[in-house]
Amino acid sequence: MAKIKVGVAGYGTIGQRLADGVAMQGDMELVGVADMMPTLSIQALNENGMIGANGVKYNLYLVEGADKAAFDKKRIPVAGTFEELVGKVDVMLDSAPAGVGAKNKEIYKKMGVKAIFQGGEKNSVADVFFHGYANYEKGVGQSYLKLTSCNTTGLIRSVDCLDRAFGIERVAITIIRRVADPGDYHRGLTNALQIDKAPSHQAVDLMTIMPHVDATGILVHTPVTHGHIITVVAKGKKKVTKEMALAEFQKHPRIRVVSIDEGFKGNASLFKYARDLGNRRGDMYEIGLWEDSIVETGDEIMYAINIPQESVTIPETIDAIRAATEMQTTREEGTAETNKYLGIGKFK
Amino acid sequence: MAKIKVGVAGYGTIGQRLADGVAMQGDMELVGVADMMPTLSIQALNENGMIGANGVKYNLYLVEGADKAAFDKKRIPVAGTFEELVGKVDVMLDSAPAGVGAKNKEIYKKMGVKAIFQGGEKNSVADVFFHGYANYEKGVGQSYLKLTSCNTTGLIRSVDCLDRAFGIERVAITIIRRVADPGDYHRGLTNALQIDKAPSHQAVDLMTIMPHVDATGILVHTPVTHGHIITVVAKGKKKVTKEMALAEFQKHPRIRVVSIDEGFKGNASLFKYARDLGNRRGDMYEIGLWEDSIVETGDEIMYAINIPQESVTIPETIDAIRAATEMQTTREEGTAETNKYLGIGKFK
Amino acid sequence: MAKIKVGVAGYGTIGQRLADGVAMQGDMELVGVADMMPTLSIQALNENGMIGANGVKYNLYLVEGADKAAFDKKRIPVAGTFEELVGKVDVMLDSAPAGVGAKNKEIYKKMGVKAIFQGGEKNSVADVFFHGYANYEKGVGQSYLKLTSCNTTGLIRSVDCLDRAFGIERVAITIIRRVADPGDYHRGLTNALQIDKAPSHQAVDLMTIMPHVDATGILVHTPVTHGHIITVVAKGKKKVTKEMALAEFQKHPRIRVVSIDEGFKGNASLFKYARDLGNRRGDMYEIGLWEDSIVETGDEIMYAINIPQESVTIPETIDAIRAATEMQTTREEGTAETNKYLGIGKFK
Amino acid sequence: MAKIKVGVAGYGTIGQRLADGVAMQGDMELVGVADMMPTLSIQALNENGMIGANGVKYNLYLVEGADKAAFDKKRIPVAGTFEELVGKVDVMLDSAPAGVGAKNKEIYKKMGVKAIFQGGEKNSVADVFFHGYANYEKGVGQSYLKLTSCNTTGLIRSVDCLDRAFGIERVAITIIRRVADPGDYHRGLTNALQIDKAPSHQAVDLMTIMPHVDATGILVHTPVTHGHIITVVAKGKKKVTKEMALAEFQKHPRIRVVSIDEGFKGNASLFKYARDLGNRRGDMYEIGLWEDSIVETGDEIMYAINIPQESVTIPETIDAIRAATEMQTTREEGTAETNKYLGIGKFK
Repeated sequence: MAKIKVGVAGYGTIGQRLADGVAMQGDMELVGVADMMPTLSIQALNENGMIGANGVKYNLYLVEGADKAAFDKKRIPVAGTFEELVGKVDVMLDSAPAGVGAKNKEIYKKMGVKAIFQGGEKNSVADVFFHGYANYEKGVGQSYLKLTSCNTTGLIRSVDCLDRAFGIERVAITIIRRVADPGDYHRGLTNALQIDKAPSHQAVDLMTIMPHVDATGILVHTPVTHGHIITVVAKGKKKVTKEMALAEFQKHPRIRVVSIDEGFKGNASLFKYARDLGNRRGDMYEIGLWEDSIVETGDEIMYAINIPQESVTIPETIDAIRAATEMQTTREEGTAETNKYLGIGKFK
Repeated sequence: MAKIKVGVAGYGTIGQRLADGVAMQGDMELVGVADMMPTLSIQALNENGMIGANGVKYNLYLVEGADKAAFDKKRIPVAGTFEELVGKVDVMLDSAPAGVGAKNKEIYKKMGVKAIFQGGEKNSVADVFFHGYANYEKGVGQSYLKLTSCNTTGLIRSVDCLDRAFGIERVAITIIRRVADPGDYHRGLTNALQIDKAPSHQAVDLMTIMPHVDATGILVHTPVTHGHIITVVAKGKKKVTKEMALAEFQKHPRIRVVSIDEGFKGNASLFKYARDLGNRRGDMYEIGLWEDSIVETGDEIMYAINIPQESVTIPETIDAIRAATEMQTTREEGTAETNKYLGIGKFK
Repeated sequence: MAKIKVGVAGYGTIGQRLADGVAMQGDMELVGVADMMPTLSIQALNENGMIGANGVKYNLYLVEGADKAAFDKKRIPVAGTFEELVGKVDVMLDSAPAGVGAKNKEIYKKMGVKAIFQGGEKNSVADVFFHGYANYEKGVGQSYLKLTSCNTTGLIRSVDCLDRAFGIERVAITIIRRVADPGDYHRGLTNALQIDKAPSHQAVDLMTIMPHVDATGILVHTPVTHGHIITVVAKGKKKVTKEMALAEFQKHPRIRVVSIDEGFKGNASLFKYARDLGNRRGDMYEIGLWEDSIVETGDEIMYAINIPQESVTIPETIDAIRAATEMQTTREEGTAETNKYLGIGKFK
Repeated sequence: MAKIKVGVAGYGTIGQRLADGVAMQGDMELVGVADMMPTLSIQALNENGMIGANGVKYNLYLVEGADKAAFDKKRIPVAGTFEELVGKVDVMLDSAPAGVGAKNKEIYKKMGVKAIFQGGEKNSVADVFFHGYANYEKGVGQSYLKLTSCNTTGLIRSVDCLDRAFGIERVAITIIRRVADPGDYHRGLTNALQIDKAPSHQAVDLMTIMPHVDATGILVHTPVTHGHIITVVAKGKKKVTKEMALAEFQKHPRIRVVSIDEGFKGNASLFKYARDLGNRRGDMYEIGLWEDSIVETGDEIMYAINIPQESVTIPETIDAIRAATEMQTTREEGTAETNKYLGIGKFK
């Protein structure tokens, strides 16, 4: 079977990780990436000799309005235009800045190419609001999918995990949000906790993906860079004990159960661990779930998870390629292939 | 009626605010404060000429082991020893470092003086674990009371407020804890969210004070200094709507209902506001409660509060003096007197 | 002698402190302040009952484009328009957002009112770039003065102090800049040190005020809120020893010599100390200078100072009123009056 | 020629990077690493299958007092005792906690094994205080060497670079120190700049390594994790212009000249760049030096460098192995071999 050809629009924090993720799939081909400026990320690719015009993985295409001279000055080879890239692929992964995806969609439609958008775009850009584990089948054969955002993706992994085992009726979440990524200078916060109006969009989005669950939540921004922490208060159709929940979490390939006693003291421990594992960029695809955080109260269960914001949506986005192109038509098969190629679940 | 004579042991973050609070009470007399080193706080008092040996408010007494020569070198007048201070008062407020209070208690017992301990001591140091609004009557006439910690004090204000109006059965809390006070260098956290083993002690303490409520919670430390934020998910005996809850919160003298739209974007806004009010040290006795954070889900209500950690326990500690010495024997009378002298609730 | 009448344009971080500072001068009258929105700072004034239409200190005037309805909704009394305020004063202190001052100047010129601008405006807005200690006489009788920025103001205090005693030929400075004020959410930085292109404008500005000194410098932004720290490497005309420098610093009313041994461990200690002194908002007019930071190398002397960014320019701005209106015509007299009314130097 | 056999004592932040660095040297053999607890770093090695008892690179030895049961519980294979490791090697790299190295030295002496200590130990532990570029020849054939600390190592690279070209007489440095590493929870700082007594030990250490240079400096701790920034004010024997300095810096293999215009806005940009390069753990061996920071004043030159604190001492430590064991006897040959195997300078 021919490999599915994939392009990536926008080589930012998410885009570069999508490109790496696609390149790891044995049944996909990364045709190229598109951007408009020779950012640090692109300079790093170039220093590594990983950009080329003929067969090297990360062929670089320029979007309209890009400053070609700036690339030439740094001797970064350019393979063509954004439209040329779109013309060569089966699916585009669109991780352009929020709002640009909607414009790009016109090009995708014109050229008959499927596309998968990230969480920053409006839901209306897509036919399906998608999560690899929670509603894979809804994405099968569709042309335009939109992924949930990083917090929602990780949150749904855990809620869907309990829901499939026990049935979940209601969740109330508190999102302790990291406010910037490492290397950001334009959106920091200094010595303040900032609160958003409730309910948080993540709770609303969860209800869109899992309409049988009632959800609400409060989000607080915090001045850190290494992962969001979410606390979840969940009510099951029947009483869910700590042991029951833990057993399910431990089976899920994209959930890494950790504990404070082992040394996982907070979000920075998971980043450190991923660095020590030798993962590229210190990334981790799994969410962390603290065993020592799981507590019961009445008929509810409460727990805390860690969301590696830079990389958590990569697996579900790869799932979306599989669903949209019908490479696999069931949740079990689709996610299993993604996991295999990304090396997810090896530690289980 | 003669004024109740009060001494303060330990002139640290809490002790200096207790001293100020007592000095503001028209029916109490601040006899003196005790410490062992000429800290910055004591140097500031001295620069202001507020320490004296005869009649000036902040007479300074030295605990055993204090370095008297260090005080002399800075020309800070010393009025006597810790035991001498205890001999002159009706009640000691003990805000010594955790663990020292238990030792001090031996002196208080020997000299027949009542004492009120802060949250850092073990519960066993006291006859009653006390909260001015939730169990005032339990403290009436008692000799040794222990206050709840800063987070628990503020949390209980809000839960007790709803409980008295509607009956509360269960709460699940997420504490987003500020990790250090302004001016601390010894207990910071840098670019990390640190999680504690669940359930948090604040949830456990709430159940001690309010035994008819089932509570659990998760605590996450964050690298900020201007106030904890707690989210509360509460289940009432009957359905509590946003409007019902808001009406009760707005009536409570020690709860300040604020909103993001007014400009209260987070914990640092409340600190800024207190500075702009001209409050001494930029302190605030009230907890903040965001109107825009109140949301409903099923039969539960969720909301977020801000805890000004340096000053929030001062009113309830003053309440404890009133209860222990039977100045007022009911919750309504005791808290009303405290509020009057501290200027709490004027803005209502 | 009639009091000099002063108005303040822009009741932000600097403007509110200028208003307080003017109100403390026995020979000045604060006529009013102007702003365009009911910010938290104005809400706090109003909660305190400090805004009125007849004789209360902080009469409030609205600039063009202000949303009067928003003030009415919060029952904040408004005394009139910006032009009406300008019409009642001898001098305007302009602390409007950067760039707005240049527009306001047209009004000041039209109405024949003197004005003093803050550091955010371009130098061309003023006749004189002013510093109370370094070039007071240049401002005498002038109509439009511009103050140096917070870092430059504090830096020049220390360099001018050495220069008058020993003669300074050259300085190389490193500015470790706090990136936001307490209560800011729009300009933070998270877990990063950000560097600006050299030389820093503060070094350039110093040369404008003190043209006989050669200066350069590097500025690094840091994620903190309680004061900049500047290290200064200065070369005297003759060798300046630590003892010589210290003796001069200790005599300067606006320099507070502190030490790590006393407990001043960093910028947050100075903020804490000002809070403990009971200073309004926890402000401090003096720069801190660490005795334990003064070191010699060859014919140079090196030391570190702390800049309380919110309040450091207030005294020099008051000096500017005195110079512009010829209340005092010499540096010694002008700064002495300012210091007297602000309570500066009492601790010496 | 037989490979030099190397062991590493202490598999912490530095130790794990030393082990990786040695493993990359074609003419060295990493015999094993020693530690006492199954830390996260060791758990990560084990999850990767990189610990073994027969031939796998990271054979693990336990120091006295280690909890073997804890390793067994996690099924981490143990190859033997610390003494057994020492018995198999030519050189030990000692990165044990500060103070432990002095004790370990007794074992090294007893067993006749050379050792290289990190900066945390006292100078007296070693025969030579060593820097690969500044005094390589002093380490040739010696038994006990101590490396400079991370800041001093990077600082000396830049000063030695200018000194060899132009002669440097004096430096005054300001160290803007990151206070913790990513993943640290025990030594953070929150919203404060903390100053140390001057002169900083780094300036003193520089004079020990480069006795012909007069040096002083001030160190300020900042709440960040991704690299120290140092500003250097240097006086040459003759006037050194920006162009002259830049040309030398650009030739140095362990200095990476960067600019703000390229996107290197601060210390976090260099960490991000290393992650994007795919470097293990996001590490970088080179110091960064901002071209846009180089400025002149009088006969001095000023510039700013970035110190990647976790990895910067690795190359100079490898140099020390080469010097101590006389693999290469000149600075040029020794550093060139280290650079070759670590991939340093490829980008030049």
